[in-house]
Amino acid sequence: MPSIFSKIIAREIPAHIVFEDDHTIAFLDINPVNPGHTLVVPKQESKNALETNLEDLNRAMHVVQTLAPIIVKAVAADGCTITTNVGEASGQTVFHTHIHIIPRFTGDGHISWKHESVSQEQLQTMAEKIKAQL
Amino acid sequence: MPSIFSKIIAREIPAHIVFEDDHTIAFLDINPVNPGHTLVVPKQESKNALETNLEDLNRAMHVVQTLAPIIVKAVAADGCTITTNVGEASGQTVFHTHIHIIPRFTGDGHISWKHESVSQEQLQTMAEKIKAQL
Repeated sequence: MPSIFSKIIAREIPAHIVFEDDHTIAFLDINPVNPGHTLVVPKQESKNALETNLEDLNRAMHVVQTLAPIIVKAVAADGCTITTNVGEASGQTVFHTHIHIIPRFTGDGHISWKHESVSQEQLQTMAEKIKAQL
Repeated sequence: MPSIFSKIIAREIPAHIVFEDDHTIAFLDINPVNPGHTLVVPKQESKNALETNLEDLNRAMHVVQTLAPIIVKAVAADGCTITTNVGEASGQTVFHTHIHIIPRFTGDGHISWKHESVSQEQLQTMAEKIKAQL
């Protein structure tokens, strides 16, 4: 089954496409966090950005670097968030790799993070745990 | 003035480093959204990911692809968010490019997005505006 993004690429379902080349497509998110919210998508299907082949991911990041400043300017934003979700737990809903370009406005409060409080000892233990797997 | 991340690279200030090679360093965020929250940082200073030279950005993304699954496994997370903030309005506080790997747990609610409601016409107008700048 092709993903809904593959159906957009195949022009089987409509989208507001802003960029396309042989390997990458970019279109507006229909449920934007802010105006201009755009998805950059490698055409070759992969489930998420950790499973995308590195060449396609690099091409997508190149498109992000090209598009993001243009989008920020077009909507007169103050900055942007570049983000990709891996897995349902992170909020991923379409399992075809996509990188969000989200214009941000000072004080918009549209993306918020809750932070944990941790000790130096907890951080040290965590770092050892990760390094042990490398 | 070197950034605080350059001071970490120079070992002038401490950090919980989990990975390092000639071009990239990764260490734990001292103010984690979830346990295992890691920053992947190109050693060469640039203000944000849109201004990083593409080769350094590609190297950083390669490190993200290597580290993220290891971190997710180390903390038994259900997924992760890969994100980078561009500009103060997006929440960027250190102006030396860094990509966050944030482990996510089902229902953690630690990163939340507010969405806007827009019409097809508004999306169409926005797409034309962006394409006009390309």
